[in-house]
Amino acid sequence: MLDVGIVGGTGYTGVELLRLLALHPELRIRSVTSRGDAGKSIADAYPNLRGSVEGCFVEPGLEALAGCEVVFFATPNGTAMRLAPELLARGVRVIDLAADFRLRDPAVWREWYGESHACPELLAEAVYGLPEVNREKLPAAKLVACPGCYPTAVQLGLLPLIEAGAVHLDRLIADVKSGVSGAGRKAEVPLLMSETGESFKAYNASRHRHWPEIKQGLEAASGSDVGLIFVPHLVPMIRGIHATLYAELTDAAVDVQTLYQNRYATERFVDVLPSGSHPDTRNVRGSNRCQIAVHRPPNSATTVVILSVIDNLVKGAAGQAVQCLNLMCGWDEGLGLSAVGLYP
Amino acid sequence: MLDVGIVGGTGYTGVELLRLLALHPELRIRSVTSRGDAGKSIADAYPNLRGSVEGCFVEPGLEALAGCEVVFFATPNGTAMRLAPELLARGVRVIDLAADFRLRDPAVWREWYGESHACPELLAEAVYGLPEVNREKLPAAKLVACPGCYPTAVQLGLLPLIEAGAVHLDRLIADVKSGVSGAGRKAEVPLLMSETGESFKAYNASRHRHWPEIKQGLEAASGSDVGLIFVPHLVPMIRGIHATLYAELTDAAVDVQTLYQNRYATERFVDVLPSGSHPDTRNVRGSNRCQIAVHRPPNSATTVVILSVIDNLVKGAAGQAVQCLNLMCGWDEGLGLSAVGLYP
Amino acid sequence: MLDVGIVGGTGYTGVELLRLLALHPELRIRSVTSRGDAGKSIADAYPNLRGSVEGCFVEPGLEALAGCEVVFFATPNGTAMRLAPELLARGVRVIDLAADFRLRDPAVWREWYGESHACPELLAEAVYGLPEVNREKLPAAKLVACPGCYPTAVQLGLLPLIEAGAVHLDRLIADVKSGVSGAGRKAEVPLLMSETGESFKAYNASRHRHWPEIKQGLEAASGSDVGLIFVPHLVPMIRGIHATLYAELTDAAVDVQTLYQNRYATERFVDVLPSGSHPDTRNVRGSNRCQIAVHRPPNSATTVVILSVIDNLVKGAAGQAVQCLNLMCGWDEGLGLSAVGLYP
Amino acid sequence: MLDVGIVGGTGYTGVELLRLLALHPELRIRSVTSRGDAGKSIADAYPNLRGSVEGCFVEPGLEALAGCEVVFFATPNGTAMRLAPELLARGVRVIDLAADFRLRDPAVWREWYGESHACPELLAEAVYGLPEVNREKLPAAKLVACPGCYPTAVQLGLLPLIEAGAVHLDRLIADVKSGVSGAGRKAEVPLLMSETGESFKAYNASRHRHWPEIKQGLEAASGSDVGLIFVPHLVPMIRGIHATLYAELTDAAVDVQTLYQNRYATERFVDVLPSGSHPDTRNVRGSNRCQIAVHRPPNSATTVVILSVIDNLVKGAAGQAVQCLNLMCGWDEGLGLSAVGLYP
Repeated sequence: MLDVGIVGGTGYTGVELLRLLALHPELRIRSVTSRGDAGKSIADAYPNLRGSVEGCFVEPGLEALAGCEVVFFATPNGTAMRLAPELLARGVRVIDLAADFRLRDPAVWREWYGESHACPELLAEAVYGLPEVNREKLPAAKLVACPGCYPTAVQLGLLPLIEAGAVHLDRLIADVKSGVSGAGRKAEVPLLMSETGESFKAYNASRHRHWPEIKQGLEAASGSDVGLIFVPHLVPMIRGIHATLYAELTDAAVDVQTLYQNRYATERFVDVLPSGSHPDTRNVRGSNRCQIAVHRPPNSATTVVILSVIDNLVKGAAGQAVQCLNLMCGWDEGLGLSAVGLYP
Repeated sequence: MLDVGIVGGTGYTGVELLRLLALHPELRIRSVTSRGDAGKSIADAYPNLRGSVEGCFVEPGLEALAGCEVVFFATPNGTAMRLAPELLARGVRVIDLAADFRLRDPAVWREWYGESHACPELLAEAVYGLPEVNREKLPAAKLVACPGCYPTAVQLGLLPLIEAGAVHLDRLIADVKSGVSGAGRKAEVPLLMSETGESFKAYNASRHRHWPEIKQGLEAASGSDVGLIFVPHLVPMIRGIHATLYAELTDAAVDVQTLYQNRYATERFVDVLPSGSHPDTRNVRGSNRCQIAVHRPPNSATTVVILSVIDNLVKGAAGQAVQCLNLMCGWDEGLGLSAVGLYP
Repeated sequence: MLDVGIVGGTGYTGVELLRLLALHPELRIRSVTSRGDAGKSIADAYPNLRGSVEGCFVEPGLEALAGCEVVFFATPNGTAMRLAPELLARGVRVIDLAADFRLRDPAVWREWYGESHACPELLAEAVYGLPEVNREKLPAAKLVACPGCYPTAVQLGLLPLIEAGAVHLDRLIADVKSGVSGAGRKAEVPLLMSETGESFKAYNASRHRHWPEIKQGLEAASGSDVGLIFVPHLVPMIRGIHATLYAELTDAAVDVQTLYQNRYATERFVDVLPSGSHPDTRNVRGSNRCQIAVHRPPNSATTVVILSVIDNLVKGAAGQAVQCLNLMCGWDEGLGLSAVGLYP
Repeated sequence: MLDVGIVGGTGYTGVELLRLLALHPELRIRSVTSRGDAGKSIADAYPNLRGSVEGCFVEPGLEALAGCEVVFFATPNGTAMRLAPELLARGVRVIDLAADFRLRDPAVWREWYGESHACPELLAEAVYGLPEVNREKLPAAKLVACPGCYPTAVQLGLLPLIEAGAVHLDRLIADVKSGVSGAGRKAEVPLLMSETGESFKAYNASRHRHWPEIKQGLEAASGSDVGLIFVPHLVPMIRGIHATLYAELTDAAVDVQTLYQNRYATERFVDVLPSGSHPDTRNVRGSNRCQIAVHRPPNSATTVVILSVIDNLVKGAAGQAVQCLNLMCGWDEGLGLSAVGLYP
């Protein structure tokens, strides 16, 4: 049994990790830290975990994590980079669900996250935890940066086209919609149900932190600059991301459906639907799957529209972290991730 | 007092018309027809109307509408075109909230609505009831075709750019999201709350009947072909449409914000928000307003993103019909339309 | 034109007051105070009010309210009692939408609101603003305490039985359900959409501040002690209260339906539905009406079940305040309150 | 491996059964029938099942079910009673998720379900599948009648009091609230999201089919007549039932909390929360648990308020059926039922 720790167990990605890890057959949750709730029973804080998760939150710190072989950070941005170096030095492997190690260039990190990076020397060795791209790097990884939720949905949706060199790279459009849990468990007026229920809006249409992350990923795949327009929206639902992606084919004759099926033929968590399908975010609620559908609008020869859905807290966060862990440990990639999406 | 009739008073646009007309100071609701509910009290069917609307539904037919000076059709597509000619012949003015008279070309109508048009000779004289475009034609109009809900949001959002010749016309993208009331009051499984709640999806991504209508309107404004990609989505909320529109400026230096403010300076139901705003659909829930915001993403010199929101049942249907009626009758354009959006 | 002021214009009852007052034909909104948003445009804060409400929030204080003939308090509990005495001394009439003047006994107030009352001498002269009970006291009232939202729905639902002496008073049960806007516009985690959406729960089942208020009202009507069990619940919707009320008739033969119809025959904002109806909260969303239905379960001779619905922000707060104002000023009771409930 | 069949796999309880059985380690889904969708791929109909459930729906009938050792009926009421006798005759064990075998008295069945029972002779041998009551009868059961969703939540909430003789039986009140999936997957206008979203209402307040079922269960436990008032409500959410139960203690001194903890001490799917808790339905969404909390309102010596929550599709239907199956087969009671509730 592997001993794991979770730093920051009280946010939505933290509790989702607990939900998944509670059912994982190869590990033991050794400690869950929370600055605000230390000493409090985990199951009291999250009654859905009663009967499945024992113990109390503990104060964060190295002592709390001593004895853990892997530590997950489910913390706000800027936390993991302060604690990870010491854990790594002690031989603990780190999986960060926040943004601290996602961007490779510390200058870009500073620009978008508003402070200097605390350990820029680690950025190069961090493995970007998108298994569909970096599967072979994960077994040896010491430090894994789990992708953001939007970047997961958008990259999985666009990578087949980009890797195949099938689209113009100067004008990709990602019109993306997220449930409100993506904003986290923060006491802020705009996240109240009275504010977000029964309404729909765009936000950060001109500037969102996931833009440079997506751009970095697409440029790594293409080897050249990518012009990306990224507009996120808030949907009056709790879980789910739906990316609607627009691209222009360089060759109208390419068989996009086959391209996607081939690219993901051996990926068990990426599911290419029959051509012309419209995936509901509900299809993957609670599951680690990404569902993708390809559309070729009849009124344009070269436009391709890709629909890509995930559960932002599973494939977009905690589930992907578990998938990375499974690969890091040489286990079956799907351990603890067999749950079927909840319908209705 | 003007005597008006409503054909098809039991759908969502019908009951919304009743809500608005009940407060209109210059008219009297003379008859409301319903094939299925004839003889039933209107207020029993729609308890929100108790105390505001008297009387019962009556069987549809010419007798029911005798004595009405204006008749609204809030019926399924293909109904108004069968009854309108006779009403017009008797001097009754007709306002159709369905699609029967929206498309000018009967061949296009047949292609998209699956049957031959019953009175193609009337298509040319029908006035497309978008007051922001056709205000001067409405006072003399005998037959008004109210725009669809998506076409209202998209056209109001794109017209300033197109009329000014400011964008490339070959690749306009309309990524549009609608609350479920847009699908009408039909007993269909996909519209159940268990199916549409807590989920988000695109639908008809490759083919939607509002596409030719929008295209027709944009081409009328531009005088040339328009390449339009239109992808509608279903939002788990009841009312509201949010259009996210993408276009490429022909000249990056154009002041888009000023362009919009000038275009709509005298329009009381189109409200251009400060640059960089993000309108919630909630802002206009229950109101006849369209709110528009302009974005210039910093990561592209020429891309402009327009956000346009309406209440699909008000500015996208019944409210716009009342606005047309006011103009047809020479009344103040806002009579009966003063309601403020419901927040929260 | 009457000059009115609003203290605390940024909560949900404040913005709802603005929505209603913007359409009121006999008054002018002279000042709207907000400690946090002073200097900010009202319509910028609440884009639904754009085009309907002009001006900026101002700092609270007596100067801001000088010149107002009536001042509404839409503030947290404990605010109005500190400012009202001075306003009243200057001849300004005060309508408090919070709880400061609802309870007649300062000891009870202290017990339930956790501090001593700042002006207990005013409690006796405050008129409890439930027009269906105190209509004749309102024209002369200087200080009006608008009822809480739950107390409005429960009292209107139970008063006919109690006034008629038709039920046992020792065990009345009010199982009441509220939309989340009833909790106000507070940045608190339990009010996030991720917390309250798609879930249902009771809260404060053993102790809620509206319990003594309801009890006081029912005891005033009965002249004797009332045993009341009151269990509030949170519904995953924004607006609306549904009270399900259980009582035992002293005489199984009483015609409860007629009792209710007679009691409310002349009340324009209380609507008794046909026997056996089930009012949706939606019927009254955005409107000032209370709808009530009476049930006599066939499996019990003496049990009566009353269903009572209101919009918590209208009849349960701002609308009732406007209704009180109309009566205080000798105007038509329904001025500014003609809006029909929004369906769907 | 046990071979199982499902009759009626296209309703919500059917697809939920598939979700659970797909992860069950001891069985194989041999056939899933559907009259309307025969020949259609199961995973095409329910894309959440892609990758987890293979095969197509087949025409219902005995041939389809030949070779199954256990058959689940997830059909409308009145279906199982027509097919079960023949299956039982062939040695197939039957678990009915509908109402056909819940009531022991065929006259009562006829009264509430509107037709004569097709096999009244089987009613006596059917085991009512509430494991917390009938655990010892399940291993030998050939025919199991799974309880309704409301009856599960209400009986688990009231049984400890009744079995202990602790409450007056003449006036028990069950004010119960359900998500809309409880109404099934039927194309009916009242179940549309536009009708049920953002609104709350009671329904069937005077007469609901679950009333005689609950009454029968409570009377079996008490051995005497029970006076039960049962008022169901519809909550604008998809899954979940919340029962708020009111009873009068015969002895105010009884320790209700301990009574409940003792009663359910060894029940792994019934979880008694600390006294004064308020369970969210969300706590058990997707899980087979029932959570119960006890309240003793301070303003009454003898009233006890019990809050009981379940997921109507799991513990209220498919999960309970699997729990019964496990007991029928002598397996661990929790096989296939380990999923943790989805939060948020």
